[in-house]
Amino acid sequence: MLDKNTKILIIGLGLLGGSYAMKLKEKGYYVAAIDTDRDTIGYARKLKLIDYATSEVEEDLIKDSDLLIFALYPHIFLEWIKTYGHLIRPDAIVTDVTGVKGIITDAVQGMLEGGAEFIPAHPMAGKGHLGVENSDPGIFKGANYIVVPTEKNTERGIETCKALGETLEFARISTLSTAEHDKMIAFVSQLTHCIAVSLMCATDNEHLVDYTGDSFRDLTRIADINDEMWSGLFLDNRDELLAEMDKYRKSFDEIYERIKNNDREGLREMMRLSSKRRRRFNK
Amino acid sequence: MLDKNTKILIIGLGLLGGSYAMKLKEKGYYVAAIDTDRDTIGYARKLKLIDYATSEVEEDLIKDSDLLIFALYPHIFLEWIKTYGHLIRPDAIVTDVTGVKGIITDAVQGMLEGGAEFIPAHPMAGKGHLGVENSDPGIFKGANYIVVPTEKNTERGIETCKALGETLEFARISTLSTAEHDKMIAFVSQLTHCIAVSLMCATDNEHLVDYTGDSFRDLTRIADINDEMWSGLFLDNRDELLAEMDKYRKSFDEIYERIKNNDREGLREMMRLSSKRRRRFNK
Repeated sequence: MLDKNTKILIIGLGLLGGSYAMKLKEKGYYVAAIDTDRDTIGYARKLKLIDYATSEVEEDLIKDSDLLIFALYPHIFLEWIKTYGHLIRPDAIVTDVTGVKGIITDAVQGMLEGGAEFIPAHPMAGKGHLGVENSDPGIFKGANYIVVPTEKNTERGIETCKALGETLEFARISTLSTAEHDKMIAFVSQLTHCIAVSLMCATDNEHLVDYTGDSFRDLTRIADINDEMWSGLFLDNRDELLAEMDKYRKSFDEIYERIKNNDREGLREMMRLSSKRRRRFNK
Repeated sequence: MLDKNTKILIIGLGLLGGSYAMKLKEKGYYVAAIDTDRDTIGYARKLKLIDYATSEVEEDLIKDSDLLIFALYPHIFLEWIKTYGHLIRPDAIVTDVTGVKGIITDAVQGMLEGGAEFIPAHPMAGKGHLGVENSDPGIFKGANYIVVPTEKNTERGIETCKALGETLEFARISTLSTAEHDKMIAFVSQLTHCIAVSLMCATDNEHLVDYTGDSFRDLTRIADINDEMWSGLFLDNRDELLAEMDKYRKSFDEIYERIKNNDREGLREMMRLSSKRRRRFNK
């Protein structure tokens, strides 16, 4: 479980890794970090974000850690486990922050078989701009934290992972299966980013800013997007994303037809349904 | 022009009419209001939102007013001008807050021919929930105000209208033609509402709220929508809206194809374009 004696190691000190570190330090935990980028480590040391920081994969540091949190791009995470996974103590708990689970969970649990327990998690928090210098322990406030266990996970692993979410002060902690998670994330996160990007790409009008209201501004906030990370997330969850895009496109085509047919009552019906559903978010 | 001797009459005391009244009163102007709903008038009187309020169309009040601001649904506005337009003094200035202009401008200018000058305006400010009780003079802060003149308008009319936008402390005041306005509004306002409504209608998952991040929340804020007003706005600007929906759909189909084809570089290209365009909004 998680207590003040738990030695926490964060691998990957970007926006999320850095924010985890800041929040955990704030709550009095011991936090070490590995990041291959020397500037990142320099920055983290200077601002005292962590207790110990290194740009090398130090064998003793890994062996000494009780809870390892991976905050890397999916494929770098997989590569890391393949190369260094054997260094993790069998009684350690491994978790992550990866936004897709299908391509990660089985692979990592398979590579750690007989060793440390990997319990996947997805903190639904972030910011448009990545990097350790944008770290902010406030991003967890009001946000959702999803634990995504498999049948290979133990009660101890799941409870430790939930305790981490509670320590970080997420507003809600839920549990989903890998398939449920990837389907849900395709809809609420990847699809919304597709929509925002499409909308900004649909016009080259440079004067939009002079005419927009809050609705356009809010809807396109996420159109300023990290192309490396998000193209990866889209393709790593491709089939689920395409299925959710199809569902949304059907709904959009429906409203299009109702406008085209001057179907006022049909439009109002869709609006009443969307209002009813959206109001659930206000509670 | 607009000064402290200008007698201002607001017709229609909903969210926008009420917010205009509050801001104008705050700045020391004399403001009267007509609204056919007695509860609205009672509320406005009780909270002293205006200097004079009535639920009747009083001939003397109309004849006495220098600047008339119509904050009614488009078709009620047209009906009002048809019935009472002749009561407006020929040297008075008439403006509005209507979200579509094509169906309004020519008709109102035609009916007032030889009488008062109608200079259309569109304040790009609002709230999800309508009605005088949601009035808030703060909604203009940071917002855009668009003056939509025709060749029938005079310098005096246009300047008065702009002075009103400045008095209400809008962040930016722009000028567009009727056609430009309706095309732009179809894209930045009506299309965004179509997207949000479609997205909420695309799934009946009642647990979304447990899993969403800020992106979904921001994107669907406007899905809680007044179905009477918005179905009207959509159909009153139908051709322009369908054209903008087509443009957006083409862009969405493009991102869909690139995901389907595992075209990572093509995806990143769209993301870089959308990021570049969205960053213009941060200035």
